[in-house]
Amino acid sequence: MTRNPQIILIECPDRKGLIHAITDVLLRHGVNIVQNNEFVDHESGRFYMRTAVEDTVDQGRVAGELQAVLPPEASVRFADREKRRIVILATKEYHCLGDLLLRHAFGDLNAEILCVISNHSELEPLVRRFGIPYHHVSHEQKTRAEHEASVLAELARYDPEYIILAKYMRVLTADFIKRFPSRMINIHHSFLPAFTGASPYRQAFTRGVKIIGATAHFVTENLDEGPIIAQGVLPVAHNQTVEDMIQAGRDVEKSVLAKAVKLVLDERVFLCGQRTIIFE
Amino acid sequence: MTRNPQIILIECPDRKGLIHAITDVLLRHGVNIVQNNEFVDHESGRFYMRTAVEDTVDQGRVAGELQAVLPPEASVRFADREKRRIVILATKEYHCLGDLLLRHAFGDLNAEILCVISNHSELEPLVRRFGIPYHHVSHEQKTRAEHEASVLAELARYDPEYIILAKYMRVLTADFIKRFPSRMINIHHSFLPAFTGASPYRQAFTRGVKIIGATAHFVTENLDEGPIIAQGVLPVAHNQTVEDMIQAGRDVEKSVLAKAVKLVLDERVFLCGQRTIIFE
Amino acid sequence: MTRNPQIILIECPDRKGLIHAITDVLLRHGVNIVQNNEFVDHESGRFYMRTAVEDTVDQGRVAGELQAVLPPEASVRFADREKRRIVILATKEYHCLGDLLLRHAFGDLNAEILCVISNHSELEPLVRRFGIPYHHVSHEQKTRAEHEASVLAELARYDPEYIILAKYMRVLTADFIKRFPSRMINIHHSFLPAFTGASPYRQAFTRGVKIIGATAHFVTENLDEGPIIAQGVLPVAHNQTVEDMIQAGRDVEKSVLAKAVKLVLDERVFLCGQRTIIFE
Amino acid sequence: MTRNPQIILIECPDRKGLIHAITDVLLRHGVNIVQNNEFVDHESGRFYMRTAVEDTVDQGRVAGELQAVLPPEASVRFADREKRRIVILATKEYHCLGDLLLRHAFGDLNAEILCVISNHSELEPLVRRFGIPYHHVSHEQKTRAEHEASVLAELARYDPEYIILAKYMRVLTADFIKRFPSRMINIHHSFLPAFTGASPYRQAFTRGVKIIGATAHFVTENLDEGPIIAQGVLPVAHNQTVEDMIQAGRDVEKSVLAKAVKLVLDERVFLCGQRTIIFE
Repeated sequence: MTRNPQIILIECPDRKGLIHAITDVLLRHGVNIVQNNEFVDHESGRFYMRTAVEDTVDQGRVAGELQAVLPPEASVRFADREKRRIVILATKEYHCLGDLLLRHAFGDLNAEILCVISNHSELEPLVRRFGIPYHHVSHEQKTRAEHEASVLAELARYDPEYIILAKYMRVLTADFIKRFPSRMINIHHSFLPAFTGASPYRQAFTRGVKIIGATAHFVTENLDEGPIIAQGVLPVAHNQTVEDMIQAGRDVEKSVLAKAVKLVLDERVFLCGQRTIIFE
Repeated sequence: MTRNPQIILIECPDRKGLIHAITDVLLRHGVNIVQNNEFVDHESGRFYMRTAVEDTVDQGRVAGELQAVLPPEASVRFADREKRRIVILATKEYHCLGDLLLRHAFGDLNAEILCVISNHSELEPLVRRFGIPYHHVSHEQKTRAEHEASVLAELARYDPEYIILAKYMRVLTADFIKRFPSRMINIHHSFLPAFTGASPYRQAFTRGVKIIGATAHFVTENLDEGPIIAQGVLPVAHNQTVEDMIQAGRDVEKSVLAKAVKLVLDERVFLCGQRTIIFE
Repeated sequence: MTRNPQIILIECPDRKGLIHAITDVLLRHGVNIVQNNEFVDHESGRFYMRTAVEDTVDQGRVAGELQAVLPPEASVRFADREKRRIVILATKEYHCLGDLLLRHAFGDLNAEILCVISNHSELEPLVRRFGIPYHHVSHEQKTRAEHEASVLAELARYDPEYIILAKYMRVLTADFIKRFPSRMINIHHSFLPAFTGASPYRQAFTRGVKIIGATAHFVTENLDEGPIIAQGVLPVAHNQTVEDMIQAGRDVEKSVLAKAVKLVLDERVFLCGQRTIIFE
Repeated sequence: MTRNPQIILIECPDRKGLIHAITDVLLRHGVNIVQNNEFVDHESGRFYMRTAVEDTVDQGRVAGELQAVLPPEASVRFADREKRRIVILATKEYHCLGDLLLRHAFGDLNAEILCVISNHSELEPLVRRFGIPYHHVSHEQKTRAEHEASVLAELARYDPEYIILAKYMRVLTADFIKRFPSRMINIHHSFLPAFTGASPYRQAFTRGVKIIGATAHFVTENLDEGPIIAQGVLPVAHNQTVEDMIQAGRDVEKSVLAKAVKLVLDERVFLCGQRTIIFE
């Protein structure tokens, strides 16, 4: 039995009467709904629901009864009341990492940052200022496999639920990625699917676009093709150099990544194939 | 009995179990929900729901049963399947009016434009091109009351459900306004509540703002203070004159008004005191 | 000798002292500068200038003297004081075309629309309403080459300076395109370079992007790769279908195309390789 | 004699031939122009110019010669090559302050943060982490005059060029303000001139606006009426509470304040009466 808002998360094949069946269970338990979001994806025929309930709830019994009235394949769970355990990977740029550290320090992220891992040492003083462990895992004189093994060794010590790539500038192998399915969030410094790969601002400059952007997405084995969580844009003009775009883009990158991380940590994101459902 | 999506609109005091009671009625009638929006305004304790249902429905019986299971004060209705009957009031500027005429001509407005009334004659050729009646009701050599009486006389002939003020530059009296409660939509050429009253672009220029905007709202007796339906904005710079702002602002005005008109015509707008609930 | 603001357009290799040399000529002729824009592209080393001058000017003498003090490769010209002669190509969708027709009817485009050519007949009533010739050049039972020959025959009769592709849904051959270098403006219904080719909204839906857009660009032989003039964007959410995106995208398409057309007609666009310089 | 780009800032009454006279001086000194911005405010008849020059320049001689060829009232100066000396005033909220501290720590602000002064102690650990002096000047059991005297005493020790009000929630007296003419930058948490005064998000909620914003401005004696430097906006919906708006607004506040501070520190802002000229 717990106090405070609880979040119930349901996903199952759609069929007639689902909301009635769900609210029936909640009503019998005297549960008051504070906020409710539901969505049916008509292409896949799947039903998604996120319900915030106000009252004290016997989570085990309610979840069990919901499971019983829903299709057998239904996923029903209460959001964990604990803070999510996360690790941040970074390289040299401070803006995304610093923004997350600040929010974390003031309790604005529903997460505990366990440590920061970087292939460089530049960000160590910043991270230490916030009292967070910093692990410099250099990639120099290592093969990609060796370097990833070292990173994995650090990750194993912390066992994070989510890994945030806050401008981590190393390409990850499929082998690494598949260990964390839907559990790694990356910020790509372009408006995907435009300008995948390296130097997106240089690409954007060369193509002469009038708007640039940033994209936060789950990492999947196909680089820069994972499900998109959040995007942001910024107008640019002919008198901005590549360096100007990089500078200006940082503000979008950090706000888009922070938004995506918050959405995921607050259990507002469902995966629907290649797409995401965002219950804001 | 009707085919095609139906829209059910419910508004009542909030209490536990409303969604369950509503879905119970729908389920008993075998009604499948296509899209569902609900909202509880916790300040006023009111519940709002807009549900699109797919199946054939006996509207009278379903509405009656819903009424029976909801609080006695509940408003329950099916959206009218006919196009809304509207009249547009304008003055001299073509951009908002023209945009609505175009959408109407190609069936993109859920409305029939019955006529256009203007206190000037400039827009008559445009309106005639679209085969819509145009009534030039000049305000010259008339008191405000006399002029409004003439406009009301034209309106009486058409009996519109909604009146759209598409840059109608005359201030309306309280007397006029109270005849059409929540049935008049105005576009104000500023980002309300900034710059109420006359010459908002001149005011914006003088104040030196960096963003200008437009606001579509229901007209109430307090000028420029009615419930806001939609707003849009546009960055401006020091090198833009008042005339430049007026020019640039027109594109925002027309898109904001069109958006608001579509939302209202599609029954996506509920009033909640001074605020609107928009189910997009 | 002419009255009213004149626009001087200069493009040449950059070198020290250009502005001094140019203002020297203007000052000797007693010309007052109303507005001045200049830009040096440091990658190509080229200088671009657009100057609005207030006074009466002997265009021939001033242009000649400017040419004499600038590098020999310099392009110096006064903007034509006449309205640009344009032809619009469309298919079935009314929104971009209608928006341009409206602006044209009220003198807000610095252009004369000579005619509209379409491979369908749907838009004929709209165009006729505005008193503009409409040529239905069907592509049915014609090879691509034959159809283009028919379109070219119509174009030859009007000899336009610019061709506006207002949702003209036919792919043009390189042969056609190279007849109108930097003289055709297209609206592509995506945020280029994302989603080139067919059905960009379907592509955007499938990729699960959170922002969609539209791009106006000059047409070059490489489809969807011409220099970009203007772009606009719009947030989208998981609950929008492809059809919803198409609907919502139309408003962005029409405003982006209108913006680009106005910029070009007002001589505010310079080409700089694959990029555009926009003097707003 | 100095290396690296120099910034020349000129302001004077407009008259014919100014640019020619200025470029004449620069050319005689062999100075190459990297970037040039100029603007004439036709309402006040004033000329503004910001020129970045590449070459080594004898600042004293060039400034003297420019002064000699311009109207006697002209203000001509080279931007100081040293970092600006700034003090930040804050209260309890970390987001604007933290963002500035981060940028400062990584050299992205053209400023030295001399100290942070707050009427509360909450932010002290954050500021100490960055090695910046923190002065807690409590307002408790002090009159407004006494509290301001204490703040002024701290300021006197540091003698800052600019004071940044990073969500400093105390109303300042005219007496305080007039000591720092055009040298204090405030972030107001609304889209000014809407919602001046206290609790702007509560006001915005009550008014039912669909877009909220933040405004960075110079502080003048009339509260919330100083010249605007930068503004930003954010869409809101009926389902957002006042608390949600406050949360969401913080991201706009911090980015708008950072933008304004950077513009001022980089000498890109001219005052033009109540308005600002921004050379981006």
